[in-house]
Amino acid sequence: MPTMSELDQRCVNAIRFLAVDAVERAKSGHPGAPMGAAAMAYTLWDRVMKFNPRNPAWPDRDRFILSAGHASMLLYALLHLTGYDLSLDDIKSFRQLGSKTPGHPESERTPGVEVTTGPLGQGFANGVGMAIAADWLACRYNTPEHPVVDHFIYALVSDGDLEEGVSAEAASLAGTLGLGRLIYLYDDNGISIEGDTDIAFREDVGARFRAYGWQVLGPIDGNDIAAVETAIRAAQRDTARPSLIICRTVIGYGSPEEGTGTVHGEPLGAAHAQAAKARLGWPLEPAFHVPADVLAHMRRHVEAGARAEADWNALMDAYAAAHPERAAEFHAAMRGDLPAGWDAGLDGLFPPGSKPLATRGASGTVINALAARVPILVGGSADLAPSTKTRMDGGGDFTPEDHGGRNLHFGVREHAMGAIANGMARHGGVIPYTATFLTFSDYMRPPIRLAALMGIRVVFVFTHDSIALGEDGPTHQPVEHLAALRAIPRLRVIRPADAAETAEAWLAALRHAHGPTALALTRQNLPVLDRTVYAPADGLRRGGYVLWESAAPPALLLIATGSEVHITLEAATRLADEGLAVRVVSLPCWELFDAQPADYRAAVLPPAVRARVAVEAGIALGWERYIGPDGAMIGVPHFGASAPGDAVMAHFGFTPERIIEVAKDVVRRVAR
Amino acid sequence: MPTMSELDQRCVNAIRFLAVDAVERAKSGHPGAPMGAAAMAYTLWDRVMKFNPRNPAWPDRDRFILSAGHASMLLYALLHLTGYDLSLDDIKSFRQLGSKTPGHPESERTPGVEVTTGPLGQGFANGVGMAIAADWLACRYNTPEHPVVDHFIYALVSDGDLEEGVSAEAASLAGTLGLGRLIYLYDDNGISIEGDTDIAFREDVGARFRAYGWQVLGPIDGNDIAAVETAIRAAQRDTARPSLIICRTVIGYGSPEEGTGTVHGEPLGAAHAQAAKARLGWPLEPAFHVPADVLAHMRRHVEAGARAEADWNALMDAYAAAHPERAAEFHAAMRGDLPAGWDAGLDGLFPPGSKPLATRGASGTVINALAARVPILVGGSADLAPSTKTRMDGGGDFTPEDHGGRNLHFGVREHAMGAIANGMARHGGVIPYTATFLTFSDYMRPPIRLAALMGIRVVFVFTHDSIALGEDGPTHQPVEHLAALRAIPRLRVIRPADAAETAEAWLAALRHAHGPTALALTRQNLPVLDRTVYAPADGLRRGGYVLWESAAPPALLLIATGSEVHITLEAATRLADEGLAVRVVSLPCWELFDAQPADYRAAVLPPAVRARVAVEAGIALGWERYIGPDGAMIGVPHFGASAPGDAVMAHFGFTPERIIEVAKDVVRRVAR
Repeated sequence: MPTMSELDQRCVNAIRFLAVDAVERAKSGHPGAPMGAAAMAYTLWDRVMKFNPRNPAWPDRDRFILSAGHASMLLYALLHLTGYDLSLDDIKSFRQLGSKTPGHPESERTPGVEVTTGPLGQGFANGVGMAIAADWLACRYNTPEHPVVDHFIYALVSDGDLEEGVSAEAASLAGTLGLGRLIYLYDDNGISIEGDTDIAFREDVGARFRAYGWQVLGPIDGNDIAAVETAIRAAQRDTARPSLIICRTVIGYGSPEEGTGTVHGEPLGAAHAQAAKARLGWPLEPAFHVPADVLAHMRRHVEAGARAEADWNALMDAYAAAHPERAAEFHAAMRGDLPAGWDAGLDGLFPPGSKPLATRGASGTVINALAARVPILVGGSADLAPSTKTRMDGGGDFTPEDHGGRNLHFGVREHAMGAIANGMARHGGVIPYTATFLTFSDYMRPPIRLAALMGIRVVFVFTHDSIALGEDGPTHQPVEHLAALRAIPRLRVIRPADAAETAEAWLAALRHAHGPTALALTRQNLPVLDRTVYAPADGLRRGGYVLWESAAPPALLLIATGSEVHITLEAATRLADEGLAVRVVSLPCWELFDAQPADYRAAVLPPAVRARVAVEAGIALGWERYIGPDGAMIGVPHFGASAPGDAVMAHFGFTPERIIEVAKDVVRRVAR
Repeated sequence: MPTMSELDQRCVNAIRFLAVDAVERAKSGHPGAPMGAAAMAYTLWDRVMKFNPRNPAWPDRDRFILSAGHASMLLYALLHLTGYDLSLDDIKSFRQLGSKTPGHPESERTPGVEVTTGPLGQGFANGVGMAIAADWLACRYNTPEHPVVDHFIYALVSDGDLEEGVSAEAASLAGTLGLGRLIYLYDDNGISIEGDTDIAFREDVGARFRAYGWQVLGPIDGNDIAAVETAIRAAQRDTARPSLIICRTVIGYGSPEEGTGTVHGEPLGAAHAQAAKARLGWPLEPAFHVPADVLAHMRRHVEAGARAEADWNALMDAYAAAHPERAAEFHAAMRGDLPAGWDAGLDGLFPPGSKPLATRGASGTVINALAARVPILVGGSADLAPSTKTRMDGGGDFTPEDHGGRNLHFGVREHAMGAIANGMARHGGVIPYTATFLTFSDYMRPPIRLAALMGIRVVFVFTHDSIALGEDGPTHQPVEHLAALRAIPRLRVIRPADAAETAEAWLAALRHAHGPTALALTRQNLPVLDRTVYAPADGLRRGGYVLWESAAPPALLLIATGSEVHITLEAATRLADEGLAVRVVSLPCWELFDAQPADYRAAVLPPAVRARVAVEAGIALGWERYIGPDGAMIGVPHFGASAPGDAVMAHFGFTPERIIEVAKDVVRRVAR
């Protein structure tokens, strides 16, 4: 077993002081964690991990997640030193506008950053998703002779990560499932921003993780390279359990204020930076000093990584020779390609005359149709599959005993579910979906936001999407959630009006390779609109479309989404019977509609028509943009109520009669 | 030790079948959990708990939380049988419009319901907040002779509650703090909606809670009244640790499908309901049967409760005689009254000429001024107090060793923080506040929503409220969060423009006794507006007000909030110099403004003035209502970027120059 050489020591110090100097120069950042955890991270990267700095997308690389994203300079230093496309100038641009070295790691911005981290606990759970994806791919594609998926998921996690509930949820699930690829190094420095972790965090972390079913190693000295390596090797050998390696460290190691909260989140200051360098035997000048032998030593990973990938390519060649179709499918999966013809005929799933059907039910039908065509669709629910209708029949279950199933069981853990799905998507090889009730989207907003920020394909299914869910009452009835989801930049929110739009919604979600989609689906049955009478559902592809009109040009626009569309159509028919030229616009996806050319939008919602009524069983926030100053909104500007769904809907005015009344008022007002 | 008598058995069955029959009649609901947990709950209520059915507000009552809110009929049955104001007709109206028996318990609707539950995990964490409040009050008011605060916090928690991360966060903190009043009964029935809990939840719950520092009792048989009572008594004796009693139960006990997921969330059906009654020896008819001796037995709590409260009143009399001021303060605290003169002079904290100050800093000053006047203000941060500036100097810390401090340390646990604050508010005697960065409001949306639904006074402080926080980058920069919070019904969101508005915001938050308030505060310094030039900050009380105008009537309205107000004023001054009649409106709180009479709103935002520009460093969603069809918004319709705050703000157009440019465009367009 190699021990800590003088060169190792200088490599570790190079990492530490790149972090210190970058934070000094930026006058902002977190030097403490990189200084404390440099040796652990160096051991992992230099002695253990499999990666190719020149191809961060190599499918069989080990994954590394810096869950404590504030320690970003630790990761940037490692990426630079090992030869990724991240220069010393990039390091010097730490936290500057447009740089590749933002304050917290961003996967879209920096080669080698696997996931965007910073909000604590997310990275921890992302790793669980990566391990699920890797295990699933291994079950599907590996053969005894061809272990083409053969990598570990490493993470560096902090006290803060372990205090967050999302990591607790993810850890419990990882232990239950026995995700042996998962190897987490816990940077146990005993310090939080408000002081010693003792003020709020006295639990026995090791005992907790053992209770979850993890292998717990340590505590060891995080500065002891040999001990860290030994522990990681032991973690690798336990393939049936995830491993947590508890590494005792000193935050801000080397600084005069090491071991205190002071060194956590701001520059050391010139004097303390110099003192730390002096104490650890580092040249005081120049800043950003990287000794030639350090660089040479760490840059050997460029060659080693290329060799490792070449070996794997040879393995893939053998695999392709023996199993050409599986190999081709594997490559397509890792690229995220959808099979040819995957979407053919799905628009025929719900022919005219179909019986009324909840959009959650339609979604279930679509999921099952897609499951047969898109082998990499893998997903599940937070213990609500029978209600969300998200089970893939015949897809098998991903269980502790079988990691090859396509139906995931997240337990009642919405937050981890979202973060795990993000990790699956960032691992690649699968297209993940999640499911719960719309009101519980609140439990998983942080990962939804991060999916949008990372621009990854995750499908978030939300059913029971309005007060019409009925008896479960206001705790379960979303009213503000559509607006709150629409608020997230780059997230597409689609609320289909019937079964046919639901199929289109799923197609749109899968076609959208570089961003997440949220689907809002009903609990209650809805008529399947007769598309020989109404416009085809593929109008959804443009976000909103003219579903029906009694005469052109219209004198009144009725705009609705989801379960309110058919009620609105009923009102429109009656208004038309009274001689009004009325148009009904189905507007299932604002983001898609707003992205259409102005002339399309004006054709659907002619600016000259000021009499407009929007109908959606939710708050009005944002609808002003479509109804304009003279329009009206039939919405739910308050919490709901517990009663049968029909009663709730009628009570709050979602009836053709009420729509007609409001519409006539608006027409009258506009005419004045 | 009394054992299970025949009468006990029938009391338990009365609870079970009230639940079964109510669910049958409603054709909706959850019979399984009430049937399985009836004996546990009966034991607690009948043999242990201290309560007065005729005064649910008695300050020293034991608190009971049904964290598994879907088992609402269990609670309603207990409330009815023990003599609360909940009739058999109310039970028969289960889940009907306007009834006192909604699908999930709602504290505002039903006497005896301590907190609104349903979203899993919340009740668990609410109880931790109640225990914190009770301990804090006991430290402040109890004397050795006068234990006026002497009650326990009980909860019934389910597998689902324990899977949720929020309960993990709360449990870890409760263990750290040693909240001995906390006694939780775990309804361990091994069943989840998707099947056996084994599919997703194999952890050793007892070992996990021991790791948190809890006393863990059991597993015991949840149907064994004597065993349950013995365990609760043991829990009461351990005053230094919270206790978890693991009770093995059978979901749907008695039904032909007991022990399966089938009985969880829908009516048993007439046949199975009858079969269960037959098996447990219950009369098949009539439905809602309550034997006279059962009712007599359980209604003795009316008298016992009155006696218990009378004893406590005598204790309070003695206390008042010995400590009149403390007694008066205690009563005022429990009523939530603010001391006379508490708000006097706070408007003078930031006189003209004050140095530039971040509104988080101003908030810190205000909190400290309030702390001296409002003794029941108790709060803290999710490990960010030095950044959120929410520490009460001299207020002491609530630590494992001292439960009398006013500064709470929640650890990095935003979700539990919110739910704990809700529990504190519902316990009474304290006014809780929480603090974290605005972007992390996403981690705590479920409790924010529940605070709004319950109508309770919690102050949610959110700092670092825009992209102007700078270097931490897009993971930490809120852009959609103001909109997402404004979306929550009954929540007031206040984003003050300077220190003086910050003081007014805090006053508004404390005066708002029946609803929560979220404060959005800056990281960066802002000028303290010279109120001899600009309108007084008490305009905030109306949500929005004319801050300044160059001439009346205005030709242009500039509307801004928070840190964008002073930039907007700068632009307005220059536009005025060019001869434009420009008005600047500060709009810190939409909810308050929208609630003003129409004439006030029209006076601030005259409908005739169509040239309007809104300036807020966030998304535009909802601003349409103020800027109208001809206006423009200077916002952030995308994620932010990591760079120094000034650079980010300039990059995204938050400069007087850009405002002037946009304003001139709008004026030109409107003039056409």
